[in-house]
Amino acid sequence: MLFFTQCFGAVLDLIHLRFQHYKAKRVFSAAGQLVCVVNPTHSLKYAPTRCAAAQTSTEQGILPPCHHHETVHDPQLVPCTCPLFSCPWEGHLEVVVSHLRQTHRINILQGAEIVFLATDMHLPAPTDWIIMHSCLGHQFLLVLRKQEKYEGHPQFFATMMLIGTPTQADNFTYRLELNRNQRRLKWEATPRSVLECVDSVISDGDCLVLNTSLAQLFSDNGSLAIGIAITTSKVHSAEAEM
Amino acid sequence: MLFFTQCFGAVLDLIHLRFQHYKAKRVFSAAGQLVCVVNPTHSLKYAPTRCAAAQTSTEQGILPPCHHHETVHDPQLVPCTCPLFSCPWEGHLEVVVSHLRQTHRINILQGAEIVFLATDMHLPAPTDWIIMHSCLGHQFLLVLRKQEKYEGHPQFFATMMLIGTPTQADNFTYRLELNRNQRRLKWEATPRSVLECVDSVISDGDCLVLNTSLAQLFSDNGSLAIGIAITTSKVHSAEAEM
Repeated sequence: MLFFTQCFGAVLDLIHLRFQHYKAKRVFSAAGQLVCVVNPTHSLKYAPTRCAAAQTSTEQGILPPCHHHETVHDPQLVPCTCPLFSCPWEGHLEVVVSHLRQTHRINILQGAEIVFLATDMHLPAPTDWIIMHSCLGHQFLLVLRKQEKYEGHPQFFATMMLIGTPTQADNFTYRLELNRNQRRLKWEATPRSVLECVDSVISDGDCLVLNTSLAQLFSDNGSLAIGIAITTSKVHSAEAEM
Repeated sequence: MLFFTQCFGAVLDLIHLRFQHYKAKRVFSAAGQLVCVVNPTHSLKYAPTRCAAAQTSTEQGILPPCHHHETVHDPQLVPCTCPLFSCPWEGHLEVVVSHLRQTHRINILQGAEIVFLATDMHLPAPTDWIIMHSCLGHQFLLVLRKQEKYEGHPQFFATMMLIGTPTQADNFTYRLELNRNQRRLKWEATPRSVLECVDSVISDGDCLVLNTSLAQLFSDNGSLAIGIAITTSKVHSAEAEM
Protein backbone atom coordinates (compact mmCIF):
# COMPACT_ATOMS: atom_id res chain seq x y z
CA MET A 1 0.00 0.00 0.00
CA LEU A 2 2.88 2.32 0.94
CA PHE A 3 4.57 1.46 -2.38
CA PHE A 4 1.37 2.26 -4.30
CA THR A 5 0.96 5.60 -2.51
CA GLN A 6 4.54 6.59 -3.30
CA CYS A 7 4.17 5.61 -6.96
CA PHE A 8 0.95 7.59 -7.23
CA GLY A 9 2.71 10.59 -5.64
CA ALA A 10 5.56 10.35 -8.16
CA VAL A 11 3.09 10.22 -11.08
CA LEU A 12 1.30 13.29 -9.71
CA ASP A 13 4.63 15.12 -9.44
CA LEU A 14 5.42 14.26 -13.06
CA ILE A 15 2.00 15.52 -14.19
CA HIS A 16 2.56 18.70 -12.20
CA LEU A 17 6.01 19.23 -13.76
CA ARG A 18 4.60 18.62 -17.24
CA PHE A 19 1.84 21.15 -16.53
CA GLN A 20 4.38 23.73 -15.29
CA HIS A 21 6.38 23.27 -18.49
CA TYR A 22 3.24 23.64 -20.57
CA LYS A 23 2.17 26.70 -18.59
CA ALA A 24 5.47 28.39 -19.36
CA LYS A 25 4.82 28.47 -23.07
CA ARG A 26 1.08 28.64 -23.50
CA VAL A 27 -0.53 31.24 -25.64
CA PHE A 28 -4.30 31.31 -25.52
CA SER A 29 -7.21 33.49 -26.49
CA ALA A 30 -9.43 35.13 -23.87
CA ALA A 31 -12.36 37.39 -24.73
CA GLY A 32 -11.12 37.80 -28.30
CA GLN A 33 -7.60 38.80 -27.24
CA LEU A 34 -4.45 36.77 -27.60
CA VAL A 35 -2.95 36.11 -24.17
CA CYS A 36 0.73 35.27 -23.93
CA VAL A 37 2.14 33.88 -20.68
CA VAL A 38 5.62 35.33 -20.22
CA ASN A 39 8.05 33.84 -17.73
CA PRO A 40 10.71 35.94 -16.02
CA THR A 41 14.39 36.02 -16.86
CA HIS A 42 16.66 36.89 -13.97
CA SER A 43 19.58 39.19 -14.73
CA LEU A 44 22.79 38.86 -12.76
CA LYS A 45 23.73 42.51 -13.14
CA TYR A 46 22.87 45.70 -14.92
CA ALA A 47 25.77 48.02 -15.60
CA PRO A 48 24.43 51.58 -15.59
CA THR A 49 27.12 52.74 -18.03
CA ARG A 50 26.51 50.01 -20.61
CA CYS A 51 24.80 52.43 -22.99
CA ALA A 52 27.26 55.26 -22.56
CA ALA A 53 29.63 54.24 -25.33
CA ALA A 54 26.85 53.04 -27.62
CA GLN A 55 25.38 56.40 -28.61
CA THR A 56 27.62 56.85 -31.64
CA SER A 57 26.82 53.47 -33.16
CA THR A 58 23.02 53.86 -33.12
CA GLU A 59 22.95 56.14 -36.13
CA GLN A 60 24.69 53.51 -38.25
CA GLY A 61 22.10 50.84 -37.37
CA ILE A 62 24.61 48.82 -35.38
CA LEU A 63 23.59 47.50 -31.99
CA PRO A 64 25.75 48.47 -29.03
CA PRO A 65 27.71 45.82 -27.15
CA CYS A 66 26.08 44.76 -23.90
CA HIS A 67 26.97 42.89 -20.73
CA HIS A 68 26.75 39.33 -19.54
CA HIS A 69 23.44 37.91 -18.56
CA GLU A 70 21.99 34.79 -16.98
CA THR A 71 18.53 33.20 -17.01
CA VAL A 72 16.77 31.44 -14.15
CA HIS A 73 16.08 28.37 -16.25
CA ASP A 74 19.46 28.25 -17.96
CA PRO A 75 22.28 29.41 -15.69
CA GLN A 76 24.85 29.42 -18.53
CA LEU A 77 26.04 32.78 -19.83
CA VAL A 78 24.70 33.52 -23.31
CA PRO A 79 26.77 35.87 -25.42
CA CYS A 80 24.61 37.66 -27.98
CA THR A 81 23.91 40.75 -30.08
CA CYS A 82 20.45 41.73 -28.89
CA PRO A 83 19.76 44.99 -27.09
CA LEU A 84 18.72 43.29 -23.85
CA PHE A 85 21.29 40.64 -23.26
CA SER A 86 24.97 41.16 -23.07
CA CYS A 87 27.82 40.30 -25.36
CA PRO A 88 31.09 41.65 -26.70
CA TRP A 89 29.81 41.37 -30.29
CA GLU A 90 28.09 43.96 -32.50
CA GLY A 91 25.34 43.12 -34.98
CA HIS A 92 22.86 44.60 -37.43
CA LEU A 93 19.12 45.19 -37.00
CA GLU A 94 18.16 42.53 -39.53
CA VAL A 95 19.42 39.65 -37.40
CA VAL A 96 17.88 40.72 -34.09
CA VAL A 97 14.47 39.03 -34.49
CA SER A 98 15.85 35.61 -35.47
CA HIS A 99 18.51 35.91 -32.80
CA LEU A 100 15.98 36.69 -30.05
CA ARG A 101 13.81 33.76 -31.16
CA GLN A 102 16.54 31.23 -31.62
CA THR A 103 19.02 32.05 -28.88
CA HIS A 104 16.75 33.46 -26.21
CA ARG A 105 13.58 31.62 -27.18
CA ILE A 106 11.61 34.83 -26.92
CA ASN A 107 8.09 34.26 -28.25
CA ILE A 108 6.81 36.32 -31.17
CA LEU A 109 3.09 37.03 -31.28
CA GLN A 110 0.89 38.23 -34.12
CA GLY A 111 -2.15 40.44 -33.61
CA ALA A 112 -3.29 44.02 -33.27
CA GLU A 113 -4.10 43.66 -29.58
CA ILE A 114 -2.51 41.14 -27.25
CA VAL A 115 -2.33 40.54 -23.51
CA PHE A 116 1.11 40.08 -21.97
CA LEU A 117 0.76 37.98 -18.82
CA ALA A 118 3.93 38.27 -16.73
CA THR A 119 4.24 35.49 -14.16
CA ASP A 120 6.12 35.34 -10.83
CA MET A 121 6.08 39.08 -10.16
CA HIS A 122 7.40 38.37 -6.66
CA LEU A 123 10.86 37.33 -7.93
CA PRO A 124 13.63 39.64 -6.73
CA ALA A 125 15.02 42.46 -8.90
CA PRO A 126 16.65 42.61 -11.42
CA THR A 127 14.24 40.53 -13.51
CA ASP A 128 12.99 40.95 -17.09
CA TRP A 129 9.86 39.72 -18.86
CA ILE A 130 10.20 39.95 -22.64
CA ILE A 131 8.17 39.12 -25.74
CA MET A 132 8.18 40.21 -29.36
CA HIS A 133 5.03 41.48 -31.00
CA SER A 134 4.59 41.34 -34.78
CA CYS A 135 2.14 43.98 -35.93
CA LEU A 136 1.57 46.40 -38.84
CA GLY A 137 4.47 44.88 -40.77
CA HIS A 138 7.02 45.43 -38.02
CA GLN A 139 8.35 43.65 -34.95
CA PHE A 140 8.23 45.23 -31.52
CA LEU A 141 9.88 44.19 -28.30
CA LEU A 142 7.96 44.53 -25.02
CA VAL A 143 10.18 44.69 -21.96
CA LEU A 144 8.87 44.60 -18.39
CA ARG A 145 11.70 45.04 -15.93
CA LYS A 146 11.75 44.82 -12.13
CA GLN A 147 14.61 46.97 -10.92
CA GLU A 148 15.74 48.71 -7.74
CA LYS A 149 16.43 52.33 -8.64
CA TYR A 150 16.29 53.10 -4.94
CA GLU A 151 17.82 50.34 -2.82
CA GLY A 152 15.22 48.16 -1.15
CA HIS A 153 12.38 49.63 -3.26
CA PRO A 154 11.89 47.58 -6.44
CA GLN A 155 9.80 49.15 -9.18
CA PHE A 156 8.39 47.80 -12.44
CA PHE A 157 9.16 49.53 -15.74
CA ALA A 158 7.38 48.61 -18.98
CA THR A 159 8.26 49.88 -22.42
CA MET A 160 7.86 48.91 -26.05
CA MET A 161 10.65 49.22 -28.59
CA LEU A 162 10.60 48.90 -32.36
CA ILE A 163 13.08 46.51 -33.90
CA GLY A 164 13.88 49.21 -36.44
CA THR A 165 15.35 52.69 -36.69
CA PRO A 166 14.28 55.73 -34.60
CA THR A 167 12.74 57.25 -37.77
CA GLN A 168 10.60 54.15 -38.31
CA ALA A 169 9.63 54.13 -34.62
CA ASP A 170 8.21 57.67 -34.92
CA ASN A 171 5.40 56.29 -37.11
CA PHE A 172 3.83 54.27 -34.30
CA THR A 173 2.06 54.70 -30.98
CA TYR A 174 1.89 51.90 -28.43
CA ARG A 175 -0.49 51.55 -25.50
CA LEU A 176 0.00 49.53 -22.34
CA GLU A 177 -3.04 49.02 -20.13
CA LEU A 178 -3.51 47.55 -16.68
CA ASN A 179 -7.03 46.90 -15.45
CA ARG A 180 -7.97 45.24 -12.17
CA ASN A 181 -9.44 45.84 -8.73
CA GLN A 182 -11.47 48.85 -9.89
CA ARG A 183 -8.33 50.59 -11.08
CA ARG A 184 -7.12 51.26 -14.61
CA LEU A 185 -3.77 52.61 -15.72
CA LYS A 186 -2.99 53.42 -19.36
CA TRP A 187 0.30 54.53 -20.86
CA GLU A 188 0.55 55.70 -24.47
CA ALA A 189 3.73 56.79 -26.20
CA THR A 190 5.82 56.56 -29.33
CA PRO A 191 8.00 53.42 -29.15
CA ARG A 192 11.76 53.86 -29.00
CA SER A 193 14.05 52.07 -31.40
CA VAL A 194 16.04 49.10 -30.08
CA LEU A 195 19.07 51.06 -31.29
CA GLU A 196 18.48 53.26 -28.26
CA CYS A 197 19.36 51.12 -25.27
CA VAL A 198 16.38 49.89 -23.20
CA ASP A 199 18.44 50.60 -20.08
CA SER A 200 18.50 54.32 -20.77
CA VAL A 201 14.73 54.42 -21.43
CA ILE A 202 14.18 52.78 -18.06
CA SER A 203 16.74 54.84 -16.18
CA ASP A 204 15.13 58.00 -17.62
CA GLY A 205 11.77 56.69 -16.34
CA ASP A 206 10.21 57.52 -19.73
CA CYS A 207 7.92 54.48 -19.66
CA LEU A 208 5.11 52.94 -17.62
CA VAL A 209 6.36 52.90 -14.02
CA LEU A 210 4.71 50.90 -11.23
CA ASN A 211 5.69 50.78 -7.60
CA THR A 212 5.35 47.44 -5.79
CA SER A 213 2.00 48.22 -4.16
CA LEU A 214 0.40 49.25 -7.46
CA ALA A 215 1.86 46.17 -9.16
CA GLN A 216 0.24 44.04 -6.45
CA LEU A 217 -3.13 45.76 -6.89
CA PHE A 218 -3.00 45.02 -10.63
CA SER A 219 -1.72 41.45 -10.19
CA ASP A 220 -3.76 38.28 -9.96
CA ASN A 221 -2.15 35.39 -8.13
CA GLY A 222 1.37 36.72 -8.78
CA SER A 223 0.78 37.43 -12.48
CA LEU A 224 0.39 40.83 -14.10
CA ALA A 225 -1.71 41.18 -17.28
CA ILE A 226 -0.72 44.06 -19.56
CA GLY A 227 -2.95 44.81 -22.53
CA ILE A 228 -0.90 45.92 -25.55
CA ALA A 229 -2.08 47.75 -28.65
CA ILE A 230 -0.07 49.36 -31.44
CA THR A 231 -1.35 51.90 -33.95
CA THR A 232 0.22 53.95 -36.72
CA SER A 233 0.41 57.67 -36.08
CA LYS A 234 2.87 59.94 -37.84
CA VAL A 235 1.51 62.85 -35.85
CA HIS A 236 0.23 61.88 -32.41
CA SER A 237 -3.43 62.83 -32.55
CA ALA A 238 -3.93 62.59 -28.78
CA GLU A 239 -2.08 65.87 -28.17
CA ALA A 240 -4.79 67.91 -29.86
CA GLU A 241 -7.65 66.42 -27.84
CA MET A 242 -6.70 67.76 -24.43
CA MET B 1 14.37 111.30 -18.22
CA LEU B 2 15.86 109.03 -15.54
CA PHE B 3 12.87 109.84 -13.28
CA PHE B 4 10.46 109.00 -16.07
CA THR B 5 12.23 105.67 -16.76
CA GLN B 6 12.11 104.71 -13.08
CA CYS B 7 8.43 105.64 -12.82
CA PHE B 8 7.65 103.59 -15.91
CA GLY B 9 9.58 100.64 -14.43
CA ALA B 10 7.60 100.88 -11.18
CA VAL B 11 4.31 100.93 -13.08
CA LEU B 12 5.40 97.87 -15.08
CA ASP B 13 6.29 96.09 -11.81
CA LEU B 14 2.86 96.90 -10.40
CA ILE B 15 1.16 95.59 -13.54
CA HIS B 16 3.28 92.43 -13.30
CA LEU B 17 2.39 91.94 -9.61
CA ARG B 18 -1.29 92.47 -10.39
CA PHE B 19 -1.05 89.91 -13.20
CA GLN B 20 0.69 87.40 -10.92
CA HIS B 21 -2.10 87.81 -8.36
CA TYR B 22 -4.71 87.42 -11.08
CA LYS B 23 -2.91 84.39 -12.47
CA ALA B 24 -3.06 82.72 -9.10
CA LYS B 25 -6.83 82.63 -9.11
CA ARG B 26 -7.87 82.55 -12.73
CA VAL B 27 -10.25 79.95 -13.99
CA PHE B 28 -10.77 79.89 -17.72
CA SER B 29 -12.21 77.76 -20.44
CA ALA B 30 -9.99 76.15 -23.08
CA ALA B 31 -11.32 73.87 -25.82
CA GLY B 32 -14.63 73.44 -23.97
CA GLN B 33 -12.97 72.44 -20.72
CA LEU B 34 -12.77 74.47 -17.55
CA VAL B 35 -9.13 75.11 -16.64
CA CYS B 36 -8.24 75.95 -13.05
CA VAL B 37 -4.79 77.30 -12.21
CA VAL B 38 -3.77 75.84 -8.86
CA ASN B 39 -0.89 77.31 -6.88
CA PRO B 40 1.23 75.18 -4.55
CA THR B 41 1.01 75.07 -0.78
CA HIS B 42 4.21 74.18 0.98
CA SER B 43 3.89 71.83 3.96
CA LEU B 44 6.32 72.19 6.85
CA LYS B 45 6.14 68.54 7.84
CA TYR B 46 4.28 65.31 7.27
CA ALA B 47 4.11 62.98 10.23
CA PRO B 48 3.86 59.43 8.88
CA THR B 49 1.87 58.26 11.91
CA ARG B 50 -0.73 61.02 11.76
CA CYS B 51 -3.40 58.66 10.47
CA ALA B 52 -2.59 55.78 12.80
CA ALA B 53 -4.91 56.84 15.62
CA ALA B 54 -7.64 58.03 13.28
CA GLN B 55 -8.89 54.68 11.98
CA THR B 56 -11.50 54.25 14.72
CA SER B 57 -13.11 57.65 14.19
CA THR B 58 -13.73 57.29 10.43
CA GLU B 59 -16.73 55.01 10.89
CA GLN B 60 -18.50 57.69 12.90
CA GLY B 61 -18.01 60.30 10.18
CA ILE B 62 -15.63 62.33 12.34
CA LEU B 63 -12.45 63.60 10.80
CA PRO B 64 -9.18 62.64 12.44
CA PRO B 65 -6.97 65.26 14.06
CA CYS B 66 -4.09 66.37 11.88
CA HIS B 67 -0.86 68.33 12.17
CA HIS B 68 0.24 71.91 11.74
CA HIS B 69 0.69 73.30 8.30
CA GLU B 70 2.01 76.40 6.60
CA THR B 71 1.44 77.97 3.18
CA VAL B 72 4.00 79.72 1.00
CA HIS B 73 1.87 82.82 0.72
CA ASP B 74 0.76 82.93 4.35
CA PRO B 75 3.43 81.75 6.74
CA GLN B 76 1.11 81.72 9.76
CA LEU B 77 0.07 78.34 11.15
CA VAL B 78 -3.59 77.57 10.46
CA PRO B 79 -5.25 75.13 12.85
CA CYS B 80 -8.17 73.39 11.16
CA THR B 81 -10.35 70.31 10.80
CA CYS B 82 -9.83 69.40 7.17
CA PRO B 83 -8.23 66.14 6.09
CA LEU B 84 -5.21 67.83 4.57
CA PHE B 85 -4.18 70.42 7.06
CA SER B 86 -3.34 69.78 10.62
CA CYS B 87 -5.11 70.66 13.84
CA PRO B 88 -5.92 69.29 17.26
CA TRP B 89 -9.68 69.64 16.63
CA GLU B 90 -12.19 67.10 15.31
CA GLY B 91 -15.06 67.99 12.99
CA HIS B 92 -17.91 66.57 10.92
CA LEU B 93 -18.11 65.99 7.17
CA GLU B 94 -20.76 68.68 6.66
CA VAL B 95 -18.42 71.53 7.56
CA VAL B 96 -15.43 70.44 5.50
CA VAL B 97 -16.38 72.18 2.23
CA SER B 98 -17.10 75.59 3.76
CA HIS B 99 -14.04 75.25 5.95
CA LEU B 100 -11.74 74.49 2.99
CA ARG B 101 -13.18 77.41 1.04
CA GLN B 102 -13.16 79.94 3.83
CA THR B 103 -10.06 79.09 5.79
CA HIS B 104 -7.80 77.69 3.11
CA ARG B 105 -9.29 79.56 0.14
CA ILE B 106 -9.38 76.35 -1.85
CA ASN B 107 -11.29 76.95 -5.08
CA ILE B 108 -14.38 74.89 -5.86
CA LEU B 109 -15.12 74.21 -9.51
CA GLN B 110 -18.31 73.02 -11.20
CA GLY B 111 -18.35 70.83 -14.31
CA ALA B 112 -18.19 67.25 -15.50
CA GLU B 113 -14.67 67.62 -16.90
CA ILE B 114 -12.10 70.12 -15.72
CA VAL B 115 -8.38 70.70 -16.17
CA PHE B 116 -6.29 71.13 -13.04
CA LEU B 117 -3.23 73.23 -13.91
CA ALA B 118 -0.65 72.90 -11.13
CA THR B 119 1.98 75.67 -11.23
CA ASP B 120 5.56 75.80 -9.94
CA MET B 121 6.21 72.05 -10.10
CA HIS B 122 9.89 72.74 -9.39
CA LEU B 123 9.22 73.76 -5.75
CA PRO B 124 10.85 71.42 -3.22
CA ALA B 125 8.91 68.61 -1.53
CA PRO B 126 6.72 68.45 0.49
CA THR B 127 4.26 70.57 -1.52
CA ASP B 128 0.52 70.18 -2.15
CA TRP B 129 -1.75 71.43 -4.94
CA ILE B 130 -5.42 71.21 -3.98
CA ILE B 131 -8.81 72.06 -5.45
CA MET B 132 -12.39 71.00 -4.84
CA HIS B 133 -14.54 69.75 -7.68
CA SER B 134 -18.33 69.92 -7.47
CA CYS B 135 -19.90 67.29 -9.70
CA LEU B 136 -22.89 64.91 -9.79
CA GLY B 137 -24.31 66.41 -6.60
CA HIS B 138 -21.15 65.83 -4.56
CA GLN B 139 -17.90 67.59 -3.75
CA PHE B 140 -14.54 65.99 -4.46
CA LEU B 141 -11.08 67.01 -3.38
CA LEU B 142 -8.18 66.66 -5.80
CA VAL B 143 -4.79 66.47 -4.13
CA LEU B 144 -1.49 66.56 -6.02
CA ARG B 145 1.44 66.10 -3.66
CA LYS B 146 5.17 66.30 -4.23
CA GLN B 147 6.84 64.12 -1.63
CA GLU B 148 10.15 62.35 -1.04
CA LYS B 149 9.36 58.73 -0.22
CA TYR B 150 12.98 57.93 -0.96
CA GLU B 151 15.33 60.66 0.20
CA GLY B 152 16.57 62.84 -2.63
CA HIS B 153 14.00 61.41 -5.09
CA PRO B 154 10.81 63.49 -5.04
CA GLN B 155 7.73 61.95 -6.65
CA PHE B 156 4.30 63.33 -7.50
CA PHE B 157 1.16 61.62 -6.19
CA ALA B 158 -2.33 62.57 -7.41
CA THR B 159 -5.60 61.30 -5.97
CA MET B 160 -9.24 62.28 -5.75
CA MET B 161 -11.27 61.97 -2.58
CA LEU B 162 -15.00 62.30 -2.00
CA ILE B 163 -16.09 64.69 0.71
CA GLY B 164 -18.48 62.02 1.91
CA THR B 165 -18.48 58.51 3.39
CA PRO B 166 -16.64 55.49 1.96
CA THR B 167 -20.02 53.98 0.96
CA GLN B 168 -20.89 57.10 -1.04
CA ALA B 169 -17.42 57.11 -2.61
CA ASP B 170 -17.98 53.58 -3.98
CA ASN B 171 -20.60 54.99 -6.37
CA PHE B 172 -18.06 57.00 -8.37
CA THR B 173 -15.09 56.58 -10.68
CA TYR B 174 -12.59 59.35 -11.26
CA ARG B 175 -10.11 59.71 -14.09
CA LEU B 176 -6.89 61.70 -14.13
CA GLU B 177 -5.22 62.22 -17.49
CA LEU B 178 -1.87 63.67 -18.53
CA ASN B 179 -1.22 64.35 -22.20
CA ARG B 180 1.84 65.99 -23.67
CA ASN B 181 4.99 65.38 -25.70
CA GLN B 182 3.50 62.38 -27.52
CA ARG B 183 2.81 60.64 -24.23
CA ARG B 184 -0.44 59.99 -22.45
CA LEU B 185 -0.99 58.61 -18.96
CA LYS B 186 -4.45 57.83 -17.59
CA TRP B 187 -5.40 56.69 -14.10
CA GLU B 188 -8.93 55.55 -13.26
CA ALA B 189 -10.11 54.44 -9.84
CA THR B 190 -12.85 54.68 -7.26
CA PRO B 191 -12.29 57.79 -5.13
CA ARG B 192 -11.51 57.32 -1.47
CA SER B 193 -13.49 59.11 1.21
CA VAL B 194 -11.84 62.07 2.96
CA LEU B 195 -12.53 60.09 6.15
CA GLU B 196 -9.66 57.87 5.04
CA CYS B 197 -6.55 59.99 5.42
CA VAL B 198 -5.01 61.25 2.16
CA ASP B 199 -1.59 60.51 3.66
CA SER B 200 -2.29 56.78 3.82
CA VAL B 201 -3.56 56.72 0.21
CA ILE B 202 -0.31 58.36 -0.88
CA SER B 203 1.97 56.27 1.32
CA ASP B 204 0.24 53.13 -0.04
CA GLY B 205 0.95 54.45 -3.55
CA ASP B 206 -2.66 53.65 -4.53
CA CYS B 207 -2.94 56.69 -6.79
CA LEU B 208 -1.39 58.25 -9.90
CA VAL B 209 2.36 58.25 -9.27
CA LEU B 210 4.86 60.24 -11.34
CA ASN B 211 8.61 60.35 -10.99
CA THR B 212 10.35 63.68 -11.60
CA SER B 213 11.40 62.92 -15.18
CA LEU B 214 7.87 61.91 -16.22
CA ALA B 215 6.44 65.00 -14.48
CA GLN B 216 8.86 67.13 -16.51
CA LEU B 217 7.85 65.42 -19.76
CA PHE B 218 4.19 66.19 -19.02
CA SER B 219 4.86 69.75 -17.79
CA ASP B 220 4.77 72.92 -19.84
CA ASN B 221 6.86 75.79 -18.55
CA GLY B 222 6.79 74.44 -14.98
CA SER B 223 3.03 73.76 -14.94
CA LEU B 224 1.34 70.36 -15.06
CA ALA B 225 -2.13 70.06 -16.61
CA ILE B 226 -4.23 67.18 -15.27
CA GLY B 227 -7.55 66.46 -16.97
CA ILE B 228 -10.18 65.34 -14.44
CA ALA B 229 -13.44 63.53 -15.09
CA ILE B 230 -15.87 61.92 -12.66
CA THR B 231 -18.57 59.41 -13.52
CA THR B 232 -21.06 57.36 -11.50
CA SER B 233 -20.44 53.63 -11.43
CA LYS B 234 -21.82 51.39 -8.72
CA VAL B 235 -20.08 48.45 -10.38
CA HIS B 236 -16.89 49.42 -12.19
CA SER B 237 -17.64 48.49 -15.79
CA ALA B 238 -14.02 48.70 -16.92
CA GLU B 239 -13.12 45.43 -15.21
CA ALA B 240 -15.22 43.40 -17.60
CA GLU B 241 -13.71 44.89 -20.74
CA MET B 242 -10.23 43.49 -20.41
